[in-house]
Amino acid sequence: MKSWHITPPDAGLTAAIAHKIATKTKPLGSLGELEALAHRIALVQQTLTPQLRRPHVLVFAADHGIAQAGVSQYPAEVTPQMVRNFAAGGAAINVFCRQNGLGLTIVDAGVRGSFADLAAVRDEKIAEGTRNFAHEPAMTAAQCADALRRGARLADELHATGCNVLGVGEMGIGNTSAAAVLMHLLTGQPLAECVGRGTGLDAAGLARKLATLTRAVAAHPRVSSEPLAVLATFGGFEIAQMCGALLRAAEHRMLLLIDGFIASAALLVAARLVPAVLAYCVFCHESDEQGHRRLLAELGGRPLLRLGLRLGEGTGCALAYPLVRAAAGFLNEMASFESAGVSDDSGA
Amino acid sequence: MKSWHITPPDAGLTAAIAHKIATKTKPLGSLGELEALAHRIALVQQTLTPQLRRPHVLVFAADHGIAQAGVSQYPAEVTPQMVRNFAAGGAAINVFCRQNGLGLTIVDAGVRGSFADLAAVRDEKIAEGTRNFAHEPAMTAAQCADALRRGARLADELHATGCNVLGVGEMGIGNTSAAAVLMHLLTGQPLAECVGRGTGLDAAGLARKLATLTRAVAAHPRVSSEPLAVLATFGGFEIAQMCGALLRAAEHRMLLLIDGFIASAALLVAARLVPAVLAYCVFCHESDEQGHRRLLAELGGRPLLRLGLRLGEGTGCALAYPLVRAAAGFLNEMASFESAGVSDDSGA
Repeated sequence: MKSWHITPPDAGLTAAIAHKIATKTKPLGSLGELEALAHRIALVQQTLTPQLRRPHVLVFAADHGIAQAGVSQYPAEVTPQMVRNFAAGGAAINVFCRQNGLGLTIVDAGVRGSFADLAAVRDEKIAEGTRNFAHEPAMTAAQCADALRRGARLADELHATGCNVLGVGEMGIGNTSAAAVLMHLLTGQPLAECVGRGTGLDAAGLARKLATLTRAVAAHPRVSSEPLAVLATFGGFEIAQMCGALLRAAEHRMLLLIDGFIASAALLVAARLVPAVLAYCVFCHESDEQGHRRLLAELGGRPLLRLGLRLGEGTGCALAYPLVRAAAGFLNEMASFESAGVSDDSGA
Repeated sequence: MKSWHITPPDAGLTAAIAHKIATKTKPLGSLGELEALAHRIALVQQTLTPQLRRPHVLVFAADHGIAQAGVSQYPAEVTPQMVRNFAAGGAAINVFCRQNGLGLTIVDAGVRGSFADLAAVRDEKIAEGTRNFAHEPAMTAAQCADALRRGARLADELHATGCNVLGVGEMGIGNTSAAAVLMHLLTGQPLAECVGRGTGLDAAGLARKLATLTRAVAAHPRVSSEPLAVLATFGGFEIAQMCGALLRAAEHRMLLLIDGFIASAALLVAARLVPAVLAYCVFCHESDEQGHRRLLAELGGRPLLRLGLRLGEGTGCALAYPLVRAAAGFLNEMASFESAGVSDDSGA
């Protein structure tokens, strides 16, 4: 795997961006978080007049061997069923992308079953699900590298169409388990703080999930702390492809929309490989999944939405996108005090 | 003034709405606050297939006599200047309404100066600003009744166009002072908890504002606690027109989008007159203005956004509207477990 070449945005425009925001016809700071967001977008695009072009959500789906250990409320068959639902346009992410003007691609990163009959599903299948990391590594190093490359290639393709805003989402029964272990091993947070109810476990189910994952981590005593080794041992094909897509998109200086717990775990792996990726991120929401708040804190992210969402699929990206558009919009379209002839006593 | 005829939505559909939400292809409850919002919209419209039609924001502008007492960071001239900025399309609310597909009407409820040259400004002027309630009642009872009627007529007109979603916003230098006193007298919260920094006072300015308003309240020892008496004594023409618009729109069973501190104060007056108005409300955001959090609690409102906004103008309504649309959208457009052939182990 080649290394990634991500440079943080040049900070030279900082003062000019701050001045442009401060002279808009509104009290200083009165657009709150949208002002910091506008600043970030302008820095990422290195311009005072950022343009959001062809925003797109990639939804990566994959199955997880760990699902055989009974860590989820839902059976593994739901992953391919939901892929068919995505392809038919009936899932939440379909609705929200349609409403808010985002493109959407469904990626089979490693789901059990064939979708050859579905033109709407992009085939990037690594295998029919990962192996069960309760007993053996989820994937081989070669599979992990392949997944990163495939994710990166999808980002390349979107960039080539003119897209400069990428959201990533996922679907995969069992993937909060994979994400929780990645968080635990890459941040040092106690596993109990990283494991949550996923799609809706009750207290007993949560206790079983934690016990299963505690044993699974103990079953790999010699795994290195190197991010790719952790990813290969415990990750999922959708997580690895998301990671590759985020890294490549940051190389292209695209704005990255980060969804919930699992997408954030993919970003965590990416950030441990190349910390500069974080400068390109917009944290779309704080999930209701236990662990996400701490994971966001580890990533230095302030979420735009706190709506108790815990669906994944990139739904947080699609729901937050109008706020991203609003931030770029006020920077581009609002009058200044001077141009509008409004008295400015704010000291700006 | 005739009385208002607002009946709460019939709760007969509650179980059917809850069932429809529970059988969508997603884990139970995983859309968080959007599920409660979808439920509310369906109840307001009394249908399992709600439609949001011609959403519209009314921005009411007015001047305040209390501004002469130096309670704001900005001079009173900014009110008419901002009306011209709204008319020219250069303010934040213009940008956000354009982006999110809401109509927008600017209403001169009582600004100093003439806008006869501006076709885009609706003339509902009661007077050239209220009187200074530090010394005398802000308006007469007749002016207050006139303002309520004019606001109600605007809601009637929008309803007649087919609009069923109304957002209200405001502009008026000094109006956080009026709103703070209304909140204090109608909720019993200490004035110090109701008074905030408005457009950006520093600590000394905030202390002066609180002292000024404390004296102003003391100057009207015989004001009744009747909501319209409080509104007439301390309110603003924009607050009274908002109040009338909200009450009439609720009579029409329109969905009401509530913006920040001042719009919430207008709703507070409305709710003290007719509590049933609250069943029609969507609380769009929690403002950074001190007092708004407690005011929302008084109104039983859970805000959709917490972005540190403190701009007014209805910007919170326009920014939150895509979430409202998303809530109605998932209810209408998402597949059910049964229709999509997805296994449902959620117990729904």
